[in-house]
Amino acid sequence: MTTLALRPILFVLGIMLSVLSVFMLIAAVVDLSFENPDWHAFVAAAAVTAFVGGTWVAATWQAASLRLRRREAFVLVTSCWIALPAFSALPLLGQGHGFTDAFFEAVSAFTTTGSTVFVGLDAMAPGILFWRSLMQWLGGVGIVVMAVFILPFLRVGGMQLFETESLTRAEKLFPSAGQLARWILVVYTAMTVACTALYRLAEMTTFDALNHAMATLSTGGFSTHDASFDHFDRPLTQWIGVIFMLAGALPFVAIIKSVRGEPRALITDPQIRTFLLFLVAATAAMSLWLRLYDRIDLDEALRLSAFNIVSVVTTTGFAATDYQVWGPFAVAAFFILTFVGGCTGSTSGAVKVYRHQVLWMTMRAQLLRLSSPHRAVVVTYDGRTLPADVPASVLAFVALFVGSVTLATLVLALLGLDLVTALSSAATALCNVGPGLGPIVGPAGNFATLPDAAKWVLAAVMLLGRLEIMAFLVLLDPQFWRS
Amino acid sequence: MTTLALRPILFVLGIMLSVLSVFMLIAAVVDLSFENPDWHAFVAAAAVTAFVGGTWVAATWQAASLRLRRREAFVLVTSCWIALPAFSALPLLGQGHGFTDAFFEAVSAFTTTGSTVFVGLDAMAPGILFWRSLMQWLGGVGIVVMAVFILPFLRVGGMQLFETESLTRAEKLFPSAGQLARWILVVYTAMTVACTALYRLAEMTTFDALNHAMATLSTGGFSTHDASFDHFDRPLTQWIGVIFMLAGALPFVAIIKSVRGEPRALITDPQIRTFLLFLVAATAAMSLWLRLYDRIDLDEALRLSAFNIVSVVTTTGFAATDYQVWGPFAVAAFFILTFVGGCTGSTSGAVKVYRHQVLWMTMRAQLLRLSSPHRAVVVTYDGRTLPADVPASVLAFVALFVGSVTLATLVLALLGLDLVTALSSAATALCNVGPGLGPIVGPAGNFATLPDAAKWVLAAVMLLGRLEIMAFLVLLDPQFWRS
Repeated sequence: MTTLALRPILFVLGIMLSVLSVFMLIAAVVDLSFENPDWHAFVAAAAVTAFVGGTWVAATWQAASLRLRRREAFVLVTSCWIALPAFSALPLLGQGHGFTDAFFEAVSAFTTTGSTVFVGLDAMAPGILFWRSLMQWLGGVGIVVMAVFILPFLRVGGMQLFETESLTRAEKLFPSAGQLARWILVVYTAMTVACTALYRLAEMTTFDALNHAMATLSTGGFSTHDASFDHFDRPLTQWIGVIFMLAGALPFVAIIKSVRGEPRALITDPQIRTFLLFLVAATAAMSLWLRLYDRIDLDEALRLSAFNIVSVVTTTGFAATDYQVWGPFAVAAFFILTFVGGCTGSTSGAVKVYRHQVLWMTMRAQLLRLSSPHRAVVVTYDGRTLPADVPASVLAFVALFVGSVTLATLVLALLGLDLVTALSSAATALCNVGPGLGPIVGPAGNFATLPDAAKWVLAAVMLLGRLEIMAFLVLLDPQFWRS
Repeated sequence: MTTLALRPILFVLGIMLSVLSVFMLIAAVVDLSFENPDWHAFVAAAAVTAFVGGTWVAATWQAASLRLRRREAFVLVTSCWIALPAFSALPLLGQGHGFTDAFFEAVSAFTTTGSTVFVGLDAMAPGILFWRSLMQWLGGVGIVVMAVFILPFLRVGGMQLFETESLTRAEKLFPSAGQLARWILVVYTAMTVACTALYRLAEMTTFDALNHAMATLSTGGFSTHDASFDHFDRPLTQWIGVIFMLAGALPFVAIIKSVRGEPRALITDPQIRTFLLFLVAATAAMSLWLRLYDRIDLDEALRLSAFNIVSVVTTTGFAATDYQVWGPFAVAAFFILTFVGGCTGSTSGAVKVYRHQVLWMTMRAQLLRLSSPHRAVVVTYDGRTLPADVPASVLAFVALFVGSVTLATLVLALLGLDLVTALSSAATALCNVGPGLGPIVGPAGNFATLPDAAKWVLAAVMLLGRLEIMAFLVLLDPQFWRS
């Protein structure tokens, strides 16, 4: 048993907590600007967070130059996703919320899931509302950075496919990983500003516009109103949401390339075309169903279908309507759409487009081998031969995905949740979408009334989904801890 | 485009239909012995079937010595599973049943699913009841023969794992495939006779005992009473059912070896131990839940749990109680148990034990590779290195399995079925189990009230499940039809 190099892990965690405390102070300023007394909570939380973070950095200063090995990278990734929500929950304590609710809300925010246990958002302190949106926005950029730099290198769930993509190919445009990271931040921020401006122009107040823009680009889905997008009236608002939810679910490296003078990057990316074609087909089918079932106008059917489908598939989870009243086909369809997911290298979650593509190609190749067992079938992805370990890696991911939903459903049912609530909330948590099905966790419901134990289970499942399952499970393997 | 050699296919089909017509005459005799006038229907159906079968055999007599190639083998397997139920539906016509219901019932029988659209079984003609059981019994032996001789050779869904098993290893004991096939028939018949005798001794009439024994060994699940096993009173009857459902779900080659002087074969088989351990654990957990939830005696809780769990996992689908009243945990658990399945080389369906084992081993190996990417991880199964194409083959199967349930659920929802009914009936049909969830397709319900279109969809899904999905889908691939 070799020892884990704890110092570089604590050093990075300490820096992250210190940065987090600065963001807490911004939320305090928001509360102050609205003359809301809750700013105390943010300052207190910032002090605690800065103290802990600062202490860790100071104690491990010499470790700054140490290189993280594989093992430490895995431990660091999981630690970040637990520590940041844990400290971010501090300002949410009080106001009738215990640590369970605060932690659930913070995990839901950082994982950009968007399930909420907070009721009465319309009357809530602006600092809290802003903090919820900011956590989603920070979580969103964290996911992109993790998906571009860390997971492909760690070869998690077939993401080794994108190792070359982000580190080798991108180097033609970016001299260093640091520069690519800066570009991610710039593009993400610019898109958030653009989205804020458009929401503002459409109908929202500046405060609502900024909050919803942060929740849109991060594919998070928190709102500042209990009615979510149903609070707003103009169809244009929903179409703006559709555009920027899509932007949040596209591979950021392709967006950056297109901005930096390679506009074809958005067309040549292997995931984007499949993703958009699927969304167009699904929206067309749902519009047709809605037109026939509800007899509403085609343009309204199209908008409602597009908004809700894009919201679920990009794993944002904004609600514009309770689609559960659209009849059995819509209910079944939205349950299934929960699992689809956006492109990897974006802020979205769930299974993701490239894994569906790998599954499809593997299935096709296997069917071909059935009829001609001795034919050599070469499977290519994005013009290159699919690396031999990718199918098995995706198989492992899918098996773990199904296993996680199964186990979570059983545990939630054991806690008294009915099958539809248990199954759909397990799925929506693992896929980081937001709404489930049924009166409690459905798009018109609220997770508040769930038993505390169920909230802890769902928070754990959200983290598991965000860590692509395998990046966490590897820590439970005794072999991992042997040299 | 090379031509398909139709003649050897028609020759084999013709022989099978001729044999089927003889079994129809046995059902006629049963009706006659009860002095029931319905025997006419069986004789008429037998005449039609024998005429068609005889014509095909006569027209293709010269093809008897032709060897079937891969392509013809695939076409033959699918044709058999459609033609035999289609002709077997003939005697069921009339008595208020149209061809939709008759075909659904025959497909449900031959695939040993056991979902029924017939109501009022207790008052039904004995010939019809006997014919339903006999179809299941014939389907059961067909599945074993297909799983032992055909699918491993065709390399369907990872079953190539058992090619050596059945054809090479078995040759030490069996000089020819024909002798192994005869042994399968002998052991299957002997177990059916033993089960009949024990059911009779416990409490059933001879007629009930024979019918239930045929439905038990084939893991089919048809009953001669609307109340199924709830019609009988003695706990012993259910325990006998448990034993013989298990026997039907074990690999027949292992049973035969153990009978022929290799008793250790039942212990050394790689699937059996995992299968039994899983059932013991699941039964223990459910008994505990039932004891706590319903406060019934432990021995009753144990029996009800064992019977219903073994019934669902072996894909038999007999109902002894409506387990939907056992609370949310039981509902979720039985939904999940639907997918498990028994051992391959048996009469059971669903995912099956060896695929869970391959998934588990692949997942473990992938997790190991995450921590040490350069370590060589050798995956073994039953003491041999897992062939390289098996994980991809199982991946393709699982992807197709999930895809089939998804598509069927969507289509059924489009036909108006609610999510739980659509999802659970799609799952129970694909897994060839029998009961789904909810008031209509649940263990206390009946498929009779479903719309006709839904019955056709479910019949197709049952066939798809029985053909391990891939053996049918390969026919839809344009590449399959090219040389």
